[in-house]
Amino acid sequence: MSKGLLISFEGIDGAGKTTQIKTLACALEDQGYKVSTLREPGGTDISESIRDLLLDARNQINPMAEAMLYAAARAQLVQDVVRPLLAQGTIVLADRFIDSTIAYQGYGRGLSIEGLHQLNHLATGGLQPDLTILLDILPESGSRRRQGSLFDRIEQEGLAFQERVRQGYLEMARVMPRIRVIDGSLPVEKISDIIIDVVTRFLKGDLRVES
Amino acid sequence: MSKGLLISFEGIDGAGKTTQIKTLACALEDQGYKVSTLREPGGTDISESIRDLLLDARNQINPMAEAMLYAAARAQLVQDVVRPLLAQGTIVLADRFIDSTIAYQGYGRGLSIEGLHQLNHLATGGLQPDLTILLDILPESGSRRRQGSLFDRIEQEGLAFQERVRQGYLEMARVMPRIRVIDGSLPVEKISDIIIDVVTRFLKGDLRVES
Repeated sequence: MSKGLLISFEGIDGAGKTTQIKTLACALEDQGYKVSTLREPGGTDISESIRDLLLDARNQINPMAEAMLYAAARAQLVQDVVRPLLAQGTIVLADRFIDSTIAYQGYGRGLSIEGLHQLNHLATGGLQPDLTILLDILPESGSRRRQGSLFDRIEQEGLAFQERVRQGYLEMARVMPRIRVIDGSLPVEKISDIIIDVVTRFLKGDLRVES
Repeated sequence: MSKGLLISFEGIDGAGKTTQIKTLACALEDQGYKVSTLREPGGTDISESIRDLLLDARNQINPMAEAMLYAAARAQLVQDVVRPLLAQGTIVLADRFIDSTIAYQGYGRGLSIEGLHQLNHLATGGLQPDLTILLDILPESGSRRRQGSLFDRIEQEGLAFQERVRQGYLEMARVMPRIRVIDGSLPVEKISDIIIDVVTRFLKGDLRVES
């Protein structure tokens, strides 16, 4: 493989992205692929500093400033980390990417979707995921899974917000063939099997994504 | 006056913006106007935190991430501070605003000017200064004025960078009538007199700006 692959994981908080990324990374490494995982926002020094600002529950941040902070973190991550990894032929598994901006700041907070697409494009220079795994769960179950852990600034938003975000994701999946919706209420092992199957077929070229 | 006025001050580092803003603010207050001064990036809690990230010389920030951090700080400032002040009829004097993005990240760092205009528009919701005072100096004299003070991350860029920024500002002034170029090499008191004259005439409506 001369060029890597960017696979993003999306879904509302508590959907199980982190667990599934770990399992998939191991499975792909077992198959002999070079794999890197990263999370958004983060992955570079400045992006982690931005992450701290974004998730600190004490910070008052309006929706557009929030979108731009995520975009800034992404711009640095794409240039410093993602593009070099892809150039080396690595499979990059991203815990959130451009679709989070559309789902959270667009559908969730009501900013212009078109403006956010512009912002994403500026941040990434046009880089899109090759494949996106959308773990779809009901907001109630995401909230239940996270009980006991402290909620960050975004997670405090409540169920109605999470439901708008979820519907945004589903709407995007309807028009973007690269986004594969997977039922996140299935048993964890079952979800892993489905994801490994989808990704393995994609890598073999059996699963064409037209966009 | 039922609606305020936004006057931005622009120019390369060391051009004397801060001094001139103070003098103008006093003069306008003496004339009975409500005046507020603010600086970019900054002016809200989150914007000041972003300012710290931007100016910390240890931070590695690529040009687009930098532009987006400035835009994020601006988005918060415009919504929380600038628009409410304008709605109260205040004259807002801004130490840097949207033109800095075009001059520094566009002409200075080489990012797409069109992309940066999009970014500015997203950050401000289309708000433009009513009048812009561009203090034009040679990079050498700006650098001389700042001798003895520690250089921040942007100021470390050197003379060639400052000259590109300066030429960018002059180019913008040629096509945007709201930008008034003032020779920053004149004596400080002379510059103050010119600025007070320009602004007073603008407030009286003698000086039409067509844009």
